[in-house]
Amino acid sequence: METVNQLLGSIKDVGRDAVRGGYSRAVYSTPELDLRQWFIEQAQQRGLGVETDRNGIIWAWWGKPQDGALVTGSHLDSVPGGGAFDGPLGVASALTAVDVLVSRGLEPGRSLAITVFPEEEGSRFGVACLGSRLLTGAIDVDKALNLRDVDGNTFADVARRNGLDPRHVGPDPEAMARIGDFVELHVEQGKGLGQGGPAIAVGSSILGHGRWKLSVSGQGNHAGTTLMADRADPMVAAAQIVVAVRDTAAGQPDARATVGRLTPVPGGTNVIASRVDLWLDARHPDDAVTAQLIESIYSAAREIAAGEGCAVTLTEESYSDTVHFDPVLSRRIGELLPGAPVLATGAGHDAGVLAGHVPSAMLFVRNPSGISHSPEEYVADEDASAGAAALADVLEGLL
Amino acid sequence: METVNQLLGSIKDVGRDAVRGGYSRAVYSTPELDLRQWFIEQAQQRGLGVETDRNGIIWAWWGKPQDGALVTGSHLDSVPGGGAFDGPLGVASALTAVDVLVSRGLEPGRSLAITVFPEEEGSRFGVACLGSRLLTGAIDVDKALNLRDVDGNTFADVARRNGLDPRHVGPDPEAMARIGDFVELHVEQGKGLGQGGPAIAVGSSILGHGRWKLSVSGQGNHAGTTLMADRADPMVAAAQIVVAVRDTAAGQPDARATVGRLTPVPGGTNVIASRVDLWLDARHPDDAVTAQLIESIYSAAREIAAGEGCAVTLTEESYSDTVHFDPVLSRRIGELLPGAPVLATGAGHDAGVLAGHVPSAMLFVRNPSGISHSPEEYVADEDASAGAAALADVLEGLL
Repeated sequence: METVNQLLGSIKDVGRDAVRGGYSRAVYSTPELDLRQWFIEQAQQRGLGVETDRNGIIWAWWGKPQDGALVTGSHLDSVPGGGAFDGPLGVASALTAVDVLVSRGLEPGRSLAITVFPEEEGSRFGVACLGSRLLTGAIDVDKALNLRDVDGNTFADVARRNGLDPRHVGPDPEAMARIGDFVELHVEQGKGLGQGGPAIAVGSSILGHGRWKLSVSGQGNHAGTTLMADRADPMVAAAQIVVAVRDTAAGQPDARATVGRLTPVPGGTNVIASRVDLWLDARHPDDAVTAQLIESIYSAAREIAAGEGCAVTLTEESYSDTVHFDPVLSRRIGELLPGAPVLATGAGHDAGVLAGHVPSAMLFVRNPSGISHSPEEYVADEDASAGAAALADVLEGLL
Repeated sequence: METVNQLLGSIKDVGRDAVRGGYSRAVYSTPELDLRQWFIEQAQQRGLGVETDRNGIIWAWWGKPQDGALVTGSHLDSVPGGGAFDGPLGVASALTAVDVLVSRGLEPGRSLAITVFPEEEGSRFGVACLGSRLLTGAIDVDKALNLRDVDGNTFADVARRNGLDPRHVGPDPEAMARIGDFVELHVEQGKGLGQGGPAIAVGSSILGHGRWKLSVSGQGNHAGTTLMADRADPMVAAAQIVVAVRDTAAGQPDARATVGRLTPVPGGTNVIASRVDLWLDARHPDDAVTAQLIESIYSAAREIAAGEGCAVTLTEESYSDTVHFDPVLSRRIGELLPGAPVLATGAGHDAGVLAGHVPSAMLFVRNPSGISHSPEEYVADEDASAGAAALADVLEGLL
C-alpha cells in the first residue's frame, strides 16, 4: 500500500518551473494533463470507476455512482511557481484514505467518490474555482466560455480541445445530487497550526474574497524621445495604484489586498507603455467592508490616473462571500478527530463554492511557516501521513 | 519600379500583433525571419549580391564587396507592439534608392551595400543594437552569447539555430573595413519636423542612453492568508521605485527615465510576488549626469526596498555614450539636401554604434505626432517618398 508521501513522490517532477522555482501546473497544460492521467491510473489501479463530467471534473467512484454519496477531493492545478502540496495533498490523501478503508475491510453504507476539480487557482482563466463554479451555477456559462488565457485562447476552445463540449458546460444538477457531503483536505496556508501541537485542523470559514482587473491606459511612446513633461505614462499611474491598494488594506483591520500580477502593454524596455493591466485580490470577513475597500481603491485609482493624464477602468472578475462551513458536518468531523483545533482560512477553495449547496467541510494539514503559493510551501512527511489517516477516520465515520 | 510605399505595403501583414496592436517582430522570430527572407529576395531581384556575415548582418551589394564602400541600411526587428516604420522604412528606402540610381544610369565610383542589422531594438535579448555592437566589438562576446530571452534561450543557441556559428560571432574587422561611410535613414521619433515644413532632417547626435535591470526580492506567499503586517511584498517596493524613477528624471533637465517592462515572479493574481524584475531605460546628453541619475535612483530604490523588508540589485545591461555624428559627412549630406534641418535624437540606432568607428550619419523622415514604439507611429506616403528620394540623392552624391 502506497503512503501519501510515496504518492506525492511519484509526481514530484511533473511541472517543475525552472524559472520561477516550484511548480507551474496550469489547468489543461501538459503537466496538469499528466497529473489528471496519473490520478485516473491511480484510481483504476484501486478498482475505482472513473468518469469525467461535462465540466471536466474527474470522479473516481468506490461503489456505484449514487445520489447522496460522500465526496472528497481537491485539485491538481497550481499557481505559477506554486508549492507541491496545494491541491495534490488533498487528492493523494483521498487515494490513501481509500486504501486504508479497504485494508480495514470497511463495508461502506453509501458510495464514496474522489473528485479532482479543474482550475481551482484561476491561474489560467482568471476565475478561481472555475470547475466548482460551473458545476453549481455560480458563474454565468457564457462569461466562463469567453474567459481568455494569456495567449488569447478562450475557455470554450481549451475545453473543446480537452474533450469537453462547450454546449454542455455549466450547472449540473445530477452531479450535484450525488454529493451528500463534501470534505476537502488541504495544506494549511497560514500559521494556524503551530509546531508541536496537533497537525490537523477542522475548517470553520473562508474569508470573502474577489478578483478585480484594473486597466490603466495612457499614451504609448518612445522612451528616449518623449520628454518627461509630455508623458501620460500608465506605468507611473499603475505604480501609485499598487501603493494605494496596500495602504488602503493596511488601514482596514482584517483586510488583505494584493497586486501579484501586473502586465505593461506592450512591455518593451525602451517603450513607454500604452496600457498597464493589474489584478487586485482583496479579502475581508465582512462583505460590505470588502465592497467599501474596492470602492476606496477605485476612487484613489481614478484620481491617480487623472493626475498622470491616464484613465482607469475596474472590472470584477469573480467574487465569493464569506463562507461558513456546515456546522453539523463540521461538528461530526470534530468528534471523529478529537483534539483537532478549528481554523478559519483566508484562502478560497472548491469546498467553499460547494458549501452554498451541499454540506461541506475542510481539513487542514500543518504548514509550519504558513508560506503557500510559493516553492517554499512545506508539509512534513509525518504531518502528511497524519492528514491521510485523519481523512480515513473522517470518511469511515461518515460513510 | 516599386515605390517605397509599395515595398512597405508588401510587408504590412507580417508580424501583426493581435493583442498589443501594431507589430511584434522580435529578432529571429518567424515574422522577423520572414522579413529577412523578403529583403534577400528583393535584393536578388535587383541583382544585388547577398551575404549574411558571421554576426547575422545581411549585406546586399551593388557592385563587388570592397573596402571603403558606401553602406546604408537599418533593421527589420521591432519592439513588441511597435509601428510599421521603425526599421523597415530605412531598409525599404535603401532598396528604392538603388532603383532610382539604376534608373538614372548612375555608374558608381565605389560599391554600395544595403545592410540589415539584427536585434536593433534589444527586445528579445535585452541589448539594443546587438548586431552592430558585436560587429564593432562594443559588447563582450561571452556576455552576448549568454544573453537570454524571456523563454530562457541563450543568444548562442538562437544564433546557432539560425545558421550562425557562436565561435565566430564577434568583432569583424574585415566587415568594418568595408564600411567607408554609413548612412541610416529612419523615421523621426520626436516632433522635430513640424507640419508644413521640410519632411527630411539630417541627424546631429544621439542622446547617451542605457538600460539597467532592477531586481526586487521579497517573500512570496498566499494573497489571502498573509496579513498585511506580515508581508515583504516586492511589488509594493517596485511600485515605489517606478515613481522614484519618474520623479528623479523629472527633476533633472533633459533627462528621460522610463520603466516600460516589469515582471512580477511568479505573477499569479492570488500570489504575493517573491521577486519583481523591472527594466530602467535612462538617457541624458551628459554621460556624467546619467551616471548620477542612476546612482540617485539606485540609492532611492535601496531605501524603498529596505522599508518594505525587501532587497534590490541593479545591473547595467547596456550603455552608450552620447554620439555626435561625423561632422564632415553630415555637412556633405546637408549640402546634398538643401534646406533640411539638423536634428538631435533621443533614440539609439546602429548608426550611433558605428559612429565610433567609421564616418556615420542619419536622415530622419517626418512623423507628425512624434509617437514611435507604438502602433500609432505614422509616416505619410508623400513623406516616405520624399525620404527615399533624399536618400537616393545623398547616396548619389557620396558614391
